[in-house]
Amino acid sequence: MSLLEETRAAISEIDHEAAANTQRLLDGKTKPRRSLGRLEDLACKIAAIQGNPSPPLPTKAIVVMAGDHGVAQEGVSAYPPEVTWQMLLNFARGGAAINVLARQAAARLIVVDMGVNGPDEVIDRVLSRRIAAGTRNFTQGPAMTLEQTVLALEHGITIAQALASTGIDLIGLGEMGIGNTTAATALLAAFTGRPTLDITGRGTGIDDNAWARKVSAIDKALTVNPPTGKPALQILAALGGFEIAGLAGVVLGAAACKVPVLLDGFIASTAALCAARLAPRAAQYVIASHQSVEIGHKVVLEALGCTPLFEFSMRLGEGTGAALAMHMVDAALHILHEMATFGSAQVTDTGR
Amino acid sequence: MSLLEETRAAISEIDHEAAANTQRLLDGKTKPRRSLGRLEDLACKIAAIQGNPSPPLPTKAIVVMAGDHGVAQEGVSAYPPEVTWQMLLNFARGGAAINVLARQAAARLIVVDMGVNGPDEVIDRVLSRRIAAGTRNFTQGPAMTLEQTVLALEHGITIAQALASTGIDLIGLGEMGIGNTTAATALLAAFTGRPTLDITGRGTGIDDNAWARKVSAIDKALTVNPPTGKPALQILAALGGFEIAGLAGVVLGAAACKVPVLLDGFIASTAALCAARLAPRAAQYVIASHQSVEIGHKVVLEALGCTPLFEFSMRLGEGTGAALAMHMVDAALHILHEMATFGSAQVTDTGR
Repeated sequence: MSLLEETRAAISEIDHEAAANTQRLLDGKTKPRRSLGRLEDLACKIAAIQGNPSPPLPTKAIVVMAGDHGVAQEGVSAYPPEVTWQMLLNFARGGAAINVLARQAAARLIVVDMGVNGPDEVIDRVLSRRIAAGTRNFTQGPAMTLEQTVLALEHGITIAQALASTGIDLIGLGEMGIGNTTAATALLAAFTGRPTLDITGRGTGIDDNAWARKVSAIDKALTVNPPTGKPALQILAALGGFEIAGLAGVVLGAAACKVPVLLDGFIASTAALCAARLAPRAAQYVIASHQSVEIGHKVVLEALGCTPLFEFSMRLGEGTGAALAMHMVDAALHILHEMATFGSAQVTDTGR
Repeated sequence: MSLLEETRAAISEIDHEAAANTQRLLDGKTKPRRSLGRLEDLACKIAAIQGNPSPPLPTKAIVVMAGDHGVAQEGVSAYPPEVTWQMLLNFARGGAAINVLARQAAARLIVVDMGVNGPDEVIDRVLSRRIAAGTRNFTQGPAMTLEQTVLALEHGITIAQALASTGIDLIGLGEMGIGNTTAATALLAAFTGRPTLDITGRGTGIDDNAWARKVSAIDKALTVNPPTGKPALQILAALGGFEIAGLAGVVLGAAACKVPVLLDGFIASTAALCAARLAPRAAQYVIASHQSVEIGHKVVLEALGCTPLFEFSMRLGEGTGAALAMHMVDAALHILHEMATFGSAQVTDTGR
């Protein structure tokens, strides 16, 4: 059995009893029942994923995967494709938003070149898993071969397993890739059947003309690579990207290791949807962070059954929303471990 | 001139030019313009309040004020009044939710007894500013005298000034007081003219009978202490509480010192509304954190012109929402100070 198949098979149902026990612990704390709302939900969800009613404070990592997209040549982005490579260097040097926010959240940042179209050189602090120098233009055929797609998924699985084996127990997803909202929108259309017009957003900030080109490129891709009746792996290959498949692999690998995954924006969430189409139980291991401005994001989160924690009108990706949400996960677990109980603090408990 | 009058007079318009300069700094960072959404708004707001386009990472405090309410004897809460005193002890011993979340946010926690009905003893780590052992039952007359109200406001002002003088440049509000959603709802009805039925919530979790008693107590209070045409100070005295007036004073004192104030839930936000009715410019110095379950909270935030950062179905108070929002303020200022610019990182800037 391949690593991908093994991993899909290894993903089990989360532990609902652990979550119920966590809720009982929280109900004993000096506060009205459920009065910390979604913080309590977060603690229970982490417990269910880890199968532990009292999960420790998390050791965190954010995996940012970068890749280029052949479809960028259709003029679907406000930025030229070389920005993917430039931003990879920016991540390596610590100057991007995610460097700042990962540091603040005390999360290890793992930057992966999954398929950037840049010089063939080693970059310090970037993990090279480059499958090709960008995908093919999916308006003319599949973006990736099936072999490339499996390789990207397995790179993601291996990275998640390695993180889990070094004690990481909370993984945030992040991505960078000029053209990748176009790929993610095509995937979303394919997986949900929603009309392209309803789910295509402005990405990094395109004007009306570029938006029309983007819609047209997606529709062409869906005609050239008709998704109906195809297995999820083939849809991912035809319409995805190296970083999207890689992140889907991270979700599968994390789920198999019982490590919770914090989503980020539209692309990272779509990668999680790909994982859920490859292994439905994987959806139980993801937690939404923010809801972005990109209009498809709401649709992806609904398809995953996730409710976002906050809406900050963000649209940057890179894992920035995941990094912010990590403070909330930390808060939930600090509450679980550090608050007094009604009994220990001698506070009257009316059971409400 | 009294301290209260001096402070009201000292609150100036915030610095909109500083905010515009902050936005220009953010626009030079390696990300699409405005793609960090509300984080960018936060940085600009802090800049406007401090009159500094590049405000430093904040040194934080949370001021939790506690007080008892005569109206509690009407059976308007799910908890008996002695819980206010018990929770004050819990704050002092570090076992409450706000102790945990303030520690996580690296915020100094200032716990103030503004008027708790408890033993007359000194508690370590609690600042005693007890004006009386709880307010009078406002269904039978004013909750506080005008002198008590001014004293409570001035205690709050003095505390804010003392914090500012020791370098605190971000203050979160928190409160504890059995019966205080009843007082805050009465104040909100008086200040906005909204019908009691529309804005009365479940507080710590009351049942239908207690809710009916709460509505009736508020309506009676508004009949016994008719607010129409009265100055804000008199309305606050008639319907407020020691901790509510104290927090209103904190807002006034902070605003006069150009220190931003993070709101918390319904009661803390209503205290800020009282401050804004005493000195309209004070509203410019407050920043909403969460929106709570308590139905009046949305109304107060609208009256203050504030949009909440997140909705976590919380209803605990104590400053818990303010503490969580502090991570977001920190994030905004880390971004401002630590991200690379397009020029320094050699990333192509398309101006979008």
